[in-house]
Amino acid sequence: MTVHILTIGDELLIGQVIDTNSARMAQFLLEIGAKVTGKTTVGDDHDGIIQALKIASHTADIVLVTGGLGPTKDDITKKAIADFYGAGFVFHDPTFERITRIWQRLGKPISDAVKDQCWMPQNATILPNKMGSAPGMWFEENNTVVVSMPGVPFEMEYLMEYEVMPRLQQRFNSLPSAHRTLLTAGEGESTIAEYLKNFEDSLPVSVKLAYLPAIGRVRLRLTVSHQDEVFIKKTLREKFSEMESLLPLELIAGYDDDTLESAIGKTLKAKGLTLATAESCSGGYLAHLITSVPGSSAYYLGSVVSYANEVKMEQLGVKAETLKSFGAVSEQTVQEMVTGALSLLKADIAVATSGIAGPDGGTPEKPVGTIWIAVGNKDRILTKKLQLGRDRMRNIQYTGYFALNFLRLFLKEEKKEG
Amino acid sequence: MTVHILTIGDELLIGQVIDTNSARMAQFLLEIGAKVTGKTTVGDDHDGIIQALKIASHTADIVLVTGGLGPTKDDITKKAIADFYGAGFVFHDPTFERITRIWQRLGKPISDAVKDQCWMPQNATILPNKMGSAPGMWFEENNTVVVSMPGVPFEMEYLMEYEVMPRLQQRFNSLPSAHRTLLTAGEGESTIAEYLKNFEDSLPVSVKLAYLPAIGRVRLRLTVSHQDEVFIKKTLREKFSEMESLLPLELIAGYDDDTLESAIGKTLKAKGLTLATAESCSGGYLAHLITSVPGSSAYYLGSVVSYANEVKMEQLGVKAETLKSFGAVSEQTVQEMVTGALSLLKADIAVATSGIAGPDGGTPEKPVGTIWIAVGNKDRILTKKLQLGRDRMRNIQYTGYFALNFLRLFLKEEKKEG
Repeated sequence: MTVHILTIGDELLIGQVIDTNSARMAQFLLEIGAKVTGKTTVGDDHDGIIQALKIASHTADIVLVTGGLGPTKDDITKKAIADFYGAGFVFHDPTFERITRIWQRLGKPISDAVKDQCWMPQNATILPNKMGSAPGMWFEENNTVVVSMPGVPFEMEYLMEYEVMPRLQQRFNSLPSAHRTLLTAGEGESTIAEYLKNFEDSLPVSVKLAYLPAIGRVRLRLTVSHQDEVFIKKTLREKFSEMESLLPLELIAGYDDDTLESAIGKTLKAKGLTLATAESCSGGYLAHLITSVPGSSAYYLGSVVSYANEVKMEQLGVKAETLKSFGAVSEQTVQEMVTGALSLLKADIAVATSGIAGPDGGTPEKPVGTIWIAVGNKDRILTKKLQLGRDRMRNIQYTGYFALNFLRLFLKEEKKEG
Repeated sequence: MTVHILTIGDELLIGQVIDTNSARMAQFLLEIGAKVTGKTTVGDDHDGIIQALKIASHTADIVLVTGGLGPTKDDITKKAIADFYGAGFVFHDPTFERITRIWQRLGKPISDAVKDQCWMPQNATILPNKMGSAPGMWFEENNTVVVSMPGVPFEMEYLMEYEVMPRLQQRFNSLPSAHRTLLTAGEGESTIAEYLKNFEDSLPVSVKLAYLPAIGRVRLRLTVSHQDEVFIKKTLREKFSEMESLLPLELIAGYDDDTLESAIGKTLKAKGLTLATAESCSGGYLAHLITSVPGSSAYYLGSVVSYANEVKMEQLGVKAETLKSFGAVSEQTVQEMVTGALSLLKADIAVATSGIAGPDGGTPEKPVGTIWIAVGNKDRILTKKLQLGRDRMRNIQYTGYFALNFLRLFLKEEKKEG
C-alpha cells in the first residue's frame, strides 16, 4: 500500500511554519507497513491543489491531505477536493450540532464562517474530529483513497489514530502486523545503531526496525508483518528480547507507550516515593514534563522555580556564601537546591537545575550552555555538569530531559519506601 | 519568479527527519520576492527524482534541490540530475583539491567514495561549499534553473547565502516585496476573520494577508509585492494600520517578531515591574513560557508549582478552610495563591492557575477542563474561569496562554513603577 502526503498552506511555502505533520503521519503509516512514496506541499491555491491531487492520486493508493480546512478565506481545501471530484455540497447536521455545542461551551454565538464549515462534499465520509471544529473527510474513487484532515497537529494526530488508521487497515487488508517499542535514554541514534548493527543486518524481511530519535531519547520500534499471526507473536517476542539484550541495561528507559516522564512516574509510584524539583535554568520546563503525565499528582509535590538568586536563598536556603564564592551555576548551588527542595516541600527525592541557557550571560569560565544538575535524597546527592550549545530553547529542553534521565538512573538504586 | 523546492531522502519519507531546510530556503527567497509555488519530497530513488525534476521544472522558474549528495550508496541525486539532462561527467579538479586539503587536515586518506564526489555533470556550474565536501551545482536550460545543494542544514544555508541568492537576484530581476506581522491574542482565527472580512475583500492583488493561528493567538502577516519600492513602503504602512484599526485594541498583543511571552516581558521591563507565578494545573508550563524569553530573569523572579495541597497551604498560605469549603479548583484558591506568591516571592504582580487538567479527576460540578486563573498585585486581583476540553496537554497549553493573555490585559492598566 503506497501513500502520498499532500500538505496544504501558504504558511508552509513561505517558511513560516515547519511541517511536522508529514513526519508524524509517516510514523503512523510505518506501523501498518504502508510506504510513503512521495510528499507534496502546495499553497492555498484552488487549481494548485487540484493539480497536486491529480498527480498524487495517480502515483499512490492513498493520498493523505492536511491543512486548509479552517474557517478563513484562505482555507479552500474542501472546495478544491469537491471540484476535483466534481461533487456538490450538503449541509452536515451532526457537524453543526457538534460545533454548536463547542461554541455554546465557549459562550459565544456561532459565526457564519463557522457555519460554512458544516457544508461537506456530498461524496465525503465525514470523520468526526473531537479535537476541533473542522472534521476529517474520507473519499474513495477508482481504488484511490483521499483523506483530508486539519493541519493543526493534535487534530491530525487524533484523526489518524482513531479514524484514519483503522479504516486504512480495514480497507487495504494489508499484511497483519504488530509492533513493540523500546524506549532508550542517554545515548544518541548513532551509538544505539552501533549496538544493533549486526542485529539489523540479520533481520528477515518480515521484521522492520525504526529509529525514532528525540532529545535525549531514541525510540526503537520493531514491527513484524506476516500473514501468520502466530509467526508474528513468536517472532516479535524473540526479536524484541534479542534487541533488548544487545543494549546496555542503563539505556533502557521504558516499553511501548512509556515516555521518560511516565516511566519515572511508574517507578516512583511502585517505590512509594514523592518527588520535588528546584529549577533555575530549566525555568519550569522540568516540572512541565513531569506534570504532563496523567496522575502525576500522586507522586509529584511541586517545584520551586528559583529564577532570582533571592528565591534560591530565601525559599531553597542556598547560602549567600555559596552563591558568592561558587556562583549560581555551580555544583555547590545545585546540591544546596536539592537539600532545600527536600526539606521545603517534604519530598523523598529532589532534582535541581542551574545553568546559563543563553543566548547571553556566559563568561570565559562558564560559557553559555554550562548546566549543573543534581538529584538526591536525605542520604546522597549526585551531580552532573553539562556543556551544551548556544540555543536557549534547546538548552532548556536538553536540561529537562537530561535531568529526567539522571533521576531515572538515581531511582534504579532506590529501595522501596518503608 | 516562481520556485519549486525538491527535497530528497528516504529519511524524510519515513518520518525520521523533519524537513527544516525548505522553510529556511523559503525565508531566503521571500527576501527577494521569489514565490515558492510548491514543494516535493521524494526518496533516494533515481527514477523518482527524474520524474519530480520533470514536473517541477515545468511548473517553476527555479528548482531548488537538497539532499542525496553524500558519499554513501544511497546518495544518487547527482547521477539522477545528470541523467535528467542527459549529461556526462567530468572530473572537477578544484573540488578534488579542496577535498584533499580537508582530509589532509583531518589526517585521513581520501577514500574512493570521497573521490567519486569530484565527478560532476558536465553541464553543471560548480558552487564551492566551504562547509562540507559536496559542492552545490547550478544548472540552466531552457529558462529553468535547477540548483542542487547538500541536505545538511548549515551547508545548504551557506550555499544559499553566498552562492545561490546572489546568482538568483542577478538572473531574475524579481518583484521586490516586504511584509509586516501583527500578533493578536484572545480570539480565534474565525473571529479575527470576521473583523477583517471587508478589508480582505478590498485588498489589491499586490497585497496578501495570511493567518497563522496558534493556541490563544493568531499572527496576521501582510505582504506587499510590487516593482516600486516606494509603493511597497506606502501601501504596507497604510494597509497595515488600516488592518490594525479594524481590530479591537485589546486583541493586539504585538508586532513582527513579538511573541505573547516577549511582549509581556517588554511591558514589564518598561514599567519596571517584577513577576511571579503560582501554578497548580499548568504545572510549570506557564513559568516555562515566561522563561523561554531571553533576558526574562530581568523581570521574572520565579514560580511555586504547588501540585500538592500541602504546598499550596505551607508555601503559598492558601487557607485549609478555603481548600475545604471551596476546593483547590476555585476562585478563592487562585486568589489566595496570587496573594501568597506576591508576598512569598516579593513580586509586584503574580499569576496563579488551578484546574482539572484531566483526563480524570472531574466531578459533575467541576468537570475535567475546569480551570481558574487569577492575576493581581497588592491592590487588585482579577479572576477568570475557563471551561476547556478533556485533553490534558491541550488544557495545560491553553491555560498557559490564557494566563499570559490575562496578564497582558492586566498590565495595560498598570502604572509605571515609582
